[in-house]
Amino acid sequence: GRFNLTVLVNTEAVAINRKQKTVTAKKLPGGELSDYPYDKLLLAPGSCAVRPSIAGADLPEVFLLKDVGGTAALKNFLNSQKPERAAVIGGGSIGLEAAENFCALGLKTALIEASGQIMPAFDPEMAAILQNHLRQKKVDLRLNTLVSGIEKKRGGLVLRLSGEKGGGLKADLVLLSMGVRPETSLAAAAGLKIGKSGGIKTNRFMQTSDKDIYAAGDAVESIHAATGRPFIAALAGNAGKQARVAAAHIAGEKKTFGRVLASAAVKVFDLTACVVGANEKELKAAGLNYDKVYLHPASRAAYYPGGSPLSIKLLFAAGSGKILGAQVIGKSGADKRADVFAAALKSGLTACDLGELELVYAPPYASARDPVNYAGDVAAQVLTGGLRQAFWQDAPLPGGGGRFLLDVRTAAEHAGAPINGALNIPLHELRERTGELPKDKTIYVFCHSGLRSYIACRALTQKGFDAVNMSGGYMSWREIALEQGLIKER
Amino acid sequence: GRFNLTVLVNTEAVAINRKQKTVTAKKLPGGELSDYPYDKLLLAPGSCAVRPSIAGADLPEVFLLKDVGGTAALKNFLNSQKPERAAVIGGGSIGLEAAENFCALGLKTALIEASGQIMPAFDPEMAAILQNHLRQKKVDLRLNTLVSGIEKKRGGLVLRLSGEKGGGLKADLVLLSMGVRPETSLAAAAGLKIGKSGGIKTNRFMQTSDKDIYAAGDAVESIHAATGRPFIAALAGNAGKQARVAAAHIAGEKKTFGRVLASAAVKVFDLTACVVGANEKELKAAGLNYDKVYLHPASRAAYYPGGSPLSIKLLFAAGSGKILGAQVIGKSGADKRADVFAAALKSGLTACDLGELELVYAPPYASARDPVNYAGDVAAQVLTGGLRQAFWQDAPLPGGGGRFLLDVRTAAEHAGAPINGALNIPLHELRERTGELPKDKTIYVFCHSGLRSYIACRALTQKGFDAVNMSGGYMSWREIALEQGLIKER
Repeated sequence: GRFNLTVLVNTEAVAINRKQKTVTAKKLPGGELSDYPYDKLLLAPGSCAVRPSIAGADLPEVFLLKDVGGTAALKNFLNSQKPERAAVIGGGSIGLEAAENFCALGLKTALIEASGQIMPAFDPEMAAILQNHLRQKKVDLRLNTLVSGIEKKRGGLVLRLSGEKGGGLKADLVLLSMGVRPETSLAAAAGLKIGKSGGIKTNRFMQTSDKDIYAAGDAVESIHAATGRPFIAALAGNAGKQARVAAAHIAGEKKTFGRVLASAAVKVFDLTACVVGANEKELKAAGLNYDKVYLHPASRAAYYPGGSPLSIKLLFAAGSGKILGAQVIGKSGADKRADVFAAALKSGLTACDLGELELVYAPPYASARDPVNYAGDVAAQVLTGGLRQAFWQDAPLPGGGGRFLLDVRTAAEHAGAPINGALNIPLHELRERTGELPKDKTIYVFCHSGLRSYIACRALTQKGFDAVNMSGGYMSWREIALEQGLIKER
Repeated sequence: GRFNLTVLVNTEAVAINRKQKTVTAKKLPGGELSDYPYDKLLLAPGSCAVRPSIAGADLPEVFLLKDVGGTAALKNFLNSQKPERAAVIGGGSIGLEAAENFCALGLKTALIEASGQIMPAFDPEMAAILQNHLRQKKVDLRLNTLVSGIEKKRGGLVLRLSGEKGGGLKADLVLLSMGVRPETSLAAAAGLKIGKSGGIKTNRFMQTSDKDIYAAGDAVESIHAATGRPFIAALAGNAGKQARVAAAHIAGEKKTFGRVLASAAVKVFDLTACVVGANEKELKAAGLNYDKVYLHPASRAAYYPGGSPLSIKLLFAAGSGKILGAQVIGKSGADKRADVFAAALKSGLTACDLGELELVYAPPYASARDPVNYAGDVAAQVLTGGLRQAFWQDAPLPGGGGRFLLDVRTAAEHAGAPINGALNIPLHELRERTGELPKDKTIYVFCHSGLRSYIACRALTQKGFDAVNMSGGYMSWREIALEQGLIKER
């Protein structure tokens, strides 16, 4: 064999005997017990999928996508039973990927999520972009909705729902994708320390509270790079890195595992959604003093065909500007920018440093000033006080709740995609038409994505107006307005 | 107007009068001269395209792609004259992009390059990948070939070629893409300091040798981030960054422009080729002590459809491991990895740090261990002495010039894509078949891309053999062998 390893399959570890330094394992089937001695032991039990304690959760039409067996069972059911309606419970990565594939197979698909947003690693206004996309793809999305039971009836299953989109929902199959929990039973029974997050506690060499027992993977507690808080990352990339560190330490090397960015990507139909570092919810919970910017730059040179806008939210420390997190969503080029943010966050760069990064440019791949550079530029303006901003989600919609809204897009843009109550003065006319603006009110300025409104704010501030930029412009407003049902997708 | 600027078009600056602090400019057409006063002056003259002093270079069928006029003239010629054969002189980005587009229009296309490789920012063995791809796309590639003249004959042009692929070459149009030179005539005439590289010398605020005159863009000399040497970068991204720094300094801000990575990307038919930092030629010329690794990881999870291998060359300082440069070529995902290398290089990370980067992962975008992580892993093995390597381009081909070559691929891989003279022992049989290997010779081990051969080297070294890994494996050998005509594209 390649590595000269002894591999025991169909063998379940049932106890760790720390004093004797042995593991008791049960041969399957049969259940014959044996003890295996160890000098160093590595625990990599992973996680187990959450299965809710509701009636009907164990029906044969209810599936989990946690292992090969579950996947094969679902595939077999799809092929043999030709179901027409799928209900997915839980709006995380697995649920979204499953919903996309059910739709691709022609199934009428519902996605039921207990909380007010899908993909909890994102902030609600960014998750809204994904939610609007799901609705556009005809997914029956039911947020703030709970499943209390699944019944088998003549003609299929009926899910009993309560909450915002309650009632009875008919389906031919149900997929449970309600997340995972660290599998810590063996470790806990052996008296190893379990952290507040529910994961096995380790040091930076991946040693548990017993120095001869290491742990790696989804069962382990991580420390967040941006917040310093313990949490469960449960990400494949980290599992591999932890395993390498544990192996290196067992072999006498000095490698360490550090804090975790929890970088993640998910494909949601035509969109790629990526998150790196902390989101705003986590920063708030950790009590950190942060600032943020939204922008919607083009994924490549505007004149090169096939580009599309990216939606970027960048979070950074107020004052120092240290990058704390980023969320990037778009049809192409989102994962690239997220990876650059990840490398920058890991390196301790500030948001201002992003403006200086020298990224590769040719029109098929980027603009000469990359979206990452733009994010750095806008953040730098915020950090130096050159740009005051406000956020759509802080203002009652529509119309910004009594705010004086100035739209500096062209007249055609304004007419084609209006925001109620906004005054339109195109940027190129602004210097001549300041007489139409109030001197005694804060002027909230927006354009399509935020560049023209920034220029407008600078010009207005120089002329003595109290001007504030609506971060992310119409593009950011649109997603919130769609989510709230104020406007309809065209 | 948006910025309230006075813009003088059709006005050519002809002299800078530094004492009077005025610029003399000529109105076009007419030639009327006027003096314009300045407090601070910014020079952004850009570069001019090289036009060789050969007979026929000014024929109407000979084009330059430097400005809108040249592009429009070429497009008009293509539409009106329906040429069938194009000759491109010069194998830089412009030449390659033009060749691709000529082919897409159905023209028989030749690319003539005076040196032994195209794309001088790459090292020859990496440029070979692009050269093999051009030949596969039926481009008549003529390296080490010079054009001594272009003649207009009945039935089209004839190019007189000398060198490796000399003779007469028929064409209906010629594109000159022999690079650019900094446009420094105005600056030089005004007595401003010009650097060794031929560009205008500036400090980090973009001030020239006259503190009231700034310069930015292709006309300016840059200092290379990896080698510390002056050079001309002539890249759009840097031009913009320099202009911002100059403008900030004129406005009293403290921004500075630093050393330059010269990050660049070019699309060559189906391939994306990216370079960041120094190449090996530059490191050699600068006398730096470096090391390097080659690898060919998959652009995304192997089981997810549509992925393709990347070819990565990573250069780093011997000893410290500081990243010095990277070259990445592939069908997809090359620009993403190059951008991560660029961010890492800018942040002063070491090659080992690359293994720790937490990049976003989902199967459509990457593997759980990203190609950038793999590059870090291999470099770390080199830096810690865990991996000794040799390089195909250092060994006379085929067969590695008397080296004892061990192929640890499967028997089917070995038979399907052999390297002459290599002994095949598949990795999974190696531990049982070491009796077939010499104890008194260095064993040069290779596999498809370098992972299995690394494992083999570790196992052989543990058993007392003198084993060396052929960096990049068969994939790297193949490109050199194709380039040298030892094997044919299938």
